[in-house]
Amino acid sequence: MGVGKAGLKSGERPDLLVVLLPQSSNASFLFTKNQFKSASVLYSQRVFQGKVRALVINSGNANCGVGKEGLLHAELMAKRVAQNLDIQESEVLVFSTGIIGRPMPIDNVLRAVDSACSLLEPLDLKRASEVISTTDSFPKYDFLKRDKLEVFGFAKGAGMIHPNMGTMLAFVFINAELDCLALEKLHRDVNERTFNSISVDGCTSTNDSFGLISLGLIKEDLRKISDCVENVSLSLAKKIVQDGEGATRTIKVTVKSASIQVKARAIAQAVATSNLVKTAVFGRDPNWGRIMAAAGSTTFPFDQFKVKLYLGTHLLYDGKVHPRGVENARKYLQEAQEVEIVLDLMEGRESWTYYSSDLTYEYVKINAEYTT
Amino acid sequence: MGVGKAGLKSGERPDLLVVLLPQSSNASFLFTKNQFKSASVLYSQRVFQGKVRALVINSGNANCGVGKEGLLHAELMAKRVAQNLDIQESEVLVFSTGIIGRPMPIDNVLRAVDSACSLLEPLDLKRASEVISTTDSFPKYDFLKRDKLEVFGFAKGAGMIHPNMGTMLAFVFINAELDCLALEKLHRDVNERTFNSISVDGCTSTNDSFGLISLGLIKEDLRKISDCVENVSLSLAKKIVQDGEGATRTIKVTVKSASIQVKARAIAQAVATSNLVKTAVFGRDPNWGRIMAAAGSTTFPFDQFKVKLYLGTHLLYDGKVHPRGVENARKYLQEAQEVEIVLDLMEGRESWTYYSSDLTYEYVKINAEYTT
Repeated sequence: MGVGKAGLKSGERPDLLVVLLPQSSNASFLFTKNQFKSASVLYSQRVFQGKVRALVINSGNANCGVGKEGLLHAELMAKRVAQNLDIQESEVLVFSTGIIGRPMPIDNVLRAVDSACSLLEPLDLKRASEVISTTDSFPKYDFLKRDKLEVFGFAKGAGMIHPNMGTMLAFVFINAELDCLALEKLHRDVNERTFNSISVDGCTSTNDSFGLISLGLIKEDLRKISDCVENVSLSLAKKIVQDGEGATRTIKVTVKSASIQVKARAIAQAVATSNLVKTAVFGRDPNWGRIMAAAGSTTFPFDQFKVKLYLGTHLLYDGKVHPRGVENARKYLQEAQEVEIVLDLMEGRESWTYYSSDLTYEYVKINAEYTT
Repeated sequence: MGVGKAGLKSGERPDLLVVLLPQSSNASFLFTKNQFKSASVLYSQRVFQGKVRALVINSGNANCGVGKEGLLHAELMAKRVAQNLDIQESEVLVFSTGIIGRPMPIDNVLRAVDSACSLLEPLDLKRASEVISTTDSFPKYDFLKRDKLEVFGFAKGAGMIHPNMGTMLAFVFINAELDCLALEKLHRDVNERTFNSISVDGCTSTNDSFGLISLGLIKEDLRKISDCVENVSLSLAKKIVQDGEGATRTIKVTVKSASIQVKARAIAQAVATSNLVKTAVFGRDPNWGRIMAAAGSTTFPFDQFKVKLYLGTHLLYDGKVHPRGVENARKYLQEAQEVEIVLDLMEGRESWTYYSSDLTYEYVKINAEYTT
């Protein structure tokens, strides 16, 4: 990897990252489903054909809402990387994250590309995450080694986090070989259970991208790969929630014993993203009424006299409130850093887990004061 | 109407309202679509057959999450009103609003019903709204007289406000005669454009009900009735948003020139309910990037290089940002009490308007500290 400074972020912090892969590699990319897309996303979506050789990522400027010029800027960034490293332009993907609507100072960015390409070092996950960070308060990376299999990744993101996807970038690498079809299927499955099951503020962003790249150095069992990729991806996703703007608690909502998975997921999401549940967690208030009301807000029916609701291991409600459970849960909320909400629908075998963070004064402060 | 005190709210405030109609009247009721419903809603849904003679409404206790006992309590309330006023029990509907999960002190409530029924006065909209209020900071009522037609109503609600429906109760009366079918159709149409187009915190509640009652005293043109009912209902709905917990601004989002109505509505809702847009309005920040990102978060595509975005009358974005518009909008945000966001999709003839409020420290405070 190589690092450069284009002056897109305040201070003297590096804001441009080039990652060169050892060879042209099979990859799968998932981009934001937001209709208002960064030009970098539009560009990378257009050129990506299943193979990637290098990534160029800038932070501090979203390259979004700047008219069609943004597409040209993304193309210039890719072209410059390709020229510098003597690789194919169509295998260079461009990613941006930062403030929307500010024209990219393209001359500075291209100079930063030159300097990043001129001094390549081995991939340093921590430093890579730092370079692409914006409002993040800590770098997000993780790796896993099982026998010869290695899976590692880095990410950024703290606000505008919601499925499909938040303002986040995440890149996960596998040293094993996978063909494009298997890679894509694995990628979609893992994404649903990780980056698409987190929410900080219910707001989807313009720039989000999650790449999964197979470096093709060894052969390995698909199930083992899949397991490790999910592990690393979930770890990155949870770090993003943990760093949720203004968050003091991570909230983990599991809906279990549902008749169908889509129902478990919808209810888990409704609870995890409810502003009233999130403020209650911030207030350390075991407000089971709000949790039940959030659970009831989807189109999926359940038997309100039969379901069981737990905070941690404390039973709060099973058709009627359990005052002792509520009192114990109050203590639990004071202490637990990850607050676990479990709703048992008592009807089937399907379950889903969804992660979010509490809603605090600090969240309002950050977002009332951060400007375009 | 008659007023009683059952001690459900703090202080010495009245918390029980009985409204006796001059005769058995055609009516239409819409109840919360939340799956976790107050026993009062379950009871009223079950007994309502198109005719109503009296309403009994308590505030301070939601009669929700208290097991099947709640159904019995609602039935006892209706029965007691019917006995006191010598009317049919099945034409008495029961409504509750307040804290979830606390058993109703039914003996006190029945005594309050007796005292409410013992001293009936003409309907006083302001006082009726005050009696049914919980966290409301001002009473919500309105009336309209056009020639002989009179439409009047009262409501409550400030938090847990979101379509289908918020923690709100609203009752609108028409002096004109309408048959049940016409009444129901009118009711559904109006509800979509009024109470189902407001949001304070995206949280739907367990108790919400909106009743439309035709007193049948005069004959009047349906279109005129419809117009007046929409007017009064929108006025009540807007008062609820204006009283949104912690709100300092009302936000009015209009999406216009859409190809289909459902698209205009989905995009308007996405913008109006975005936490990032709501905090930006609180910060008086003309953050058009967040508005565009919220607009893009639905499944409906639009041409991001062609749409026009206004704050008040100031053009912020039409494929590119307009810095002068942004600067003028900053001043506009300081001054306007109702912040108007207009997104012109430049593609068709359909439009929709959605109302919400800004997200403030005070909202977090109220909801982190208010307990079950």
